[in-house]
Amino acid sequence: MTTLTRDHLARLDRDDPLAPYRQQFELEEGLIYLNGNSLGALPGAARRRAAEVVEQEWGRGLIRSWNTHDWISLPERVGDKIARLIGADRGEVVVADSTSVNLFKLAAAALEMRPGRGKIVSEPGNFPTDLYILQGLERFRPGVRLETAPREALETLIDEDTALVVLTHVHYKSGEMFDMAALTARARAVGALMLWDLSHSAGAVPVDLNGAGADFAVGCGYKYLNGGPGAPGFLFVARRHQEAFRQPLSGWFGHANPFAMQDRFEPAAGIRRGLCGTTGVLATSVLEVGVELMVSADMGQIRAKSRRMGEIFIELVESHCGDFGFGLASPRDAERRGSQVSLTHEQGFAIMQALIARNIIGDFRAPDILRFGFTPLYTRYVDLWDTVQALAEVMRREEWKQPEFRKLTTVT
Amino acid sequence: MTTLTRDHLARLDRDDPLAPYRQQFELEEGLIYLNGNSLGALPGAARRRAAEVVEQEWGRGLIRSWNTHDWISLPERVGDKIARLIGADRGEVVVADSTSVNLFKLAAAALEMRPGRGKIVSEPGNFPTDLYILQGLERFRPGVRLETAPREALETLIDEDTALVVLTHVHYKSGEMFDMAALTARARAVGALMLWDLSHSAGAVPVDLNGAGADFAVGCGYKYLNGGPGAPGFLFVARRHQEAFRQPLSGWFGHANPFAMQDRFEPAAGIRRGLCGTTGVLATSVLEVGVELMVSADMGQIRAKSRRMGEIFIELVESHCGDFGFGLASPRDAERRGSQVSLTHEQGFAIMQALIARNIIGDFRAPDILRFGFTPLYTRYVDLWDTVQALAEVMRREEWKQPEFRKLTTVT
Repeated sequence: MTTLTRDHLARLDRDDPLAPYRQQFELEEGLIYLNGNSLGALPGAARRRAAEVVEQEWGRGLIRSWNTHDWISLPERVGDKIARLIGADRGEVVVADSTSVNLFKLAAAALEMRPGRGKIVSEPGNFPTDLYILQGLERFRPGVRLETAPREALETLIDEDTALVVLTHVHYKSGEMFDMAALTARARAVGALMLWDLSHSAGAVPVDLNGAGADFAVGCGYKYLNGGPGAPGFLFVARRHQEAFRQPLSGWFGHANPFAMQDRFEPAAGIRRGLCGTTGVLATSVLEVGVELMVSADMGQIRAKSRRMGEIFIELVESHCGDFGFGLASPRDAERRGSQVSLTHEQGFAIMQALIARNIIGDFRAPDILRFGFTPLYTRYVDLWDTVQALAEVMRREEWKQPEFRKLTTVT
Repeated sequence: MTTLTRDHLARLDRDDPLAPYRQQFELEEGLIYLNGNSLGALPGAARRRAAEVVEQEWGRGLIRSWNTHDWISLPERVGDKIARLIGADRGEVVVADSTSVNLFKLAAAALEMRPGRGKIVSEPGNFPTDLYILQGLERFRPGVRLETAPREALETLIDEDTALVVLTHVHYKSGEMFDMAALTARARAVGALMLWDLSHSAGAVPVDLNGAGADFAVGCGYKYLNGGPGAPGFLFVARRHQEAFRQPLSGWFGHANPFAMQDRFEPAAGIRRGLCGTTGVLATSVLEVGVELMVSADMGQIRAKSRRMGEIFIELVESHCGDFGFGLASPRDAERRGSQVSLTHEQGFAIMQALIARNIIGDFRAPDILRFGFTPLYTRYVDLWDTVQALAEVMRREEWKQPEFRKLTTVT
């Protein structure tokens, strides 16, 4: 039985060095939002920035803003800020397109950089779009094949025929975290390239791409980076690869001199060759604000709070909901867990709907996963208490049996 | 010598059925904006919509808005509206990604739909990103080759080995318009697929994709559709091809059931299989407003005003600037011209900067093109008079010789 009380958690909030950050977000009174791992909350500064970009930069500056507001360098400027969150250097990250499109670019480039090797390795149950993109590549480029194996057998699949290994650092369902350094070393040992999907890591856990020797990475702007719904993604190419790096989505923003309007593509020097079409100025500008907020916080404090929240949440669920048939789908060891805790329950879908009806928002992932994401800049310790009490009531009163909780679509 | 006077043009404005639309745009007093062919002006409704999406849909609705605000169907909903501007049917157009990314998808799909054919045909001097993307495809997929020929020789290049013909309907530099029906028939006669880039057509000139029998099309959201800087692009796949259509950027939003989170990609029925990653909600929502404004106007009136503006502009330039060495880079025949007039001048760059300093905004395209775009919803006839008078003064007073007019980057 736990000795945790709501008072105890309220004291943790009082002593939390990150507590002041909550005011930077526009969260509705009474709402407990545990879904920042899927769509981050709105920073007030993002609201103001969106208005400014629309009214001033677009409305008044019009075409001149490409120069006067330096829209041109936006992808690198925001990329350089993200680099600080993921252990990359300046000039190694750009913001562009979606995570999916960026994964295609990098995986395609990897195949050209490892001629004669046709295998791409990933794991079953990886975030679906990653597998789908790799399958698209497999269909489209002769000689490429995607092979997957569960974690315990993954290393044996990585061999001298492997061009690329694609793994998601923090698993979207379970929150389980790979050992980035070990897997990267394994891939590099056989001459394969290593690509990390950081969608559930960037802004959530400390990431050290260069420390691990990673080759490529992609990630998402709308989760822990609070960039807004469908915000652009980012891509990382380690500096040592940038000269050899050529990706097939060679649109004009990746050209060495886009405005010379030449017929022949020449890749830009450095990471800009990862760009394709015209920058989405509004969305990228809004994302910049979310990233800045994250960069301004201390990642050590974020991680410490996030680990503690996970531990407390698990302890509370086991103490207060122990009789209701929940399983733990996340690693119990905080060291191996991202910033979420996932529970299993065969009625998971309806249970989550009942929680949402109580203004507590997590989400559901088929077939039986309830996800609770912790975003230390705006989640409070008492939110964990209140959530678990609500969960216990939903179960005790069988609220989830209400027919209106049976159908809904959700998005990661 | 022309008999046109400013009074005459003011009368045309008074009688212009489209004149009330100008109030729908937030244009600075005293500015003459002739660059809507590059970046459309800000509709007031777009400003309001951006604030609403940020504050209400993202900020308050959070993850729930995927359902409550139907973010899920946004790409098709806006696509269906664009369809009305380009002679497509419902379910044939989606909004997604950039024009460049969409071109890659369609060109790659075309190669799979025409197995055994390796040739893609285009013209030199096509909008650069189109050529660059096709070059990327050529590098990346063995057996593909891009061949280009000038307009007069284009038809001879289209043969039984041609998988795809890619042409821009209205040329970005000259404004010259292809005969869509004739070229499409030529491509189809040898079994090739025909892809039109409508970036400088959609919202500018009447387009009838299905009337012409076109197979594929892409287009831009930030020019005549007034979707904001770097707005998403769109793609069209004729209904008859949709079942066979498979594109390699098979991200999760193109899946038959994205939220089932299966490991295996299954393409969505219909045009949704043209999607890739998560929809950029903010940018797509803002674009929707621009598209709605365009759909609400009468395309016959838009085209009539645009043609007349082009004729008047040419007449005024020839009468008032006849001695200054300008050439006409656009077709004189309005029938063959999009919604812009381009002039040549060896000092074009500096001349355009001098005009911009006078608050008259057109743009420059290397090596010697001055572009003046006409957007009948907010360009007035008197703007043409004032522009040509300013141009004559810039030349007469040699304002363009000022050193500050020598360097600037611009973006189409």
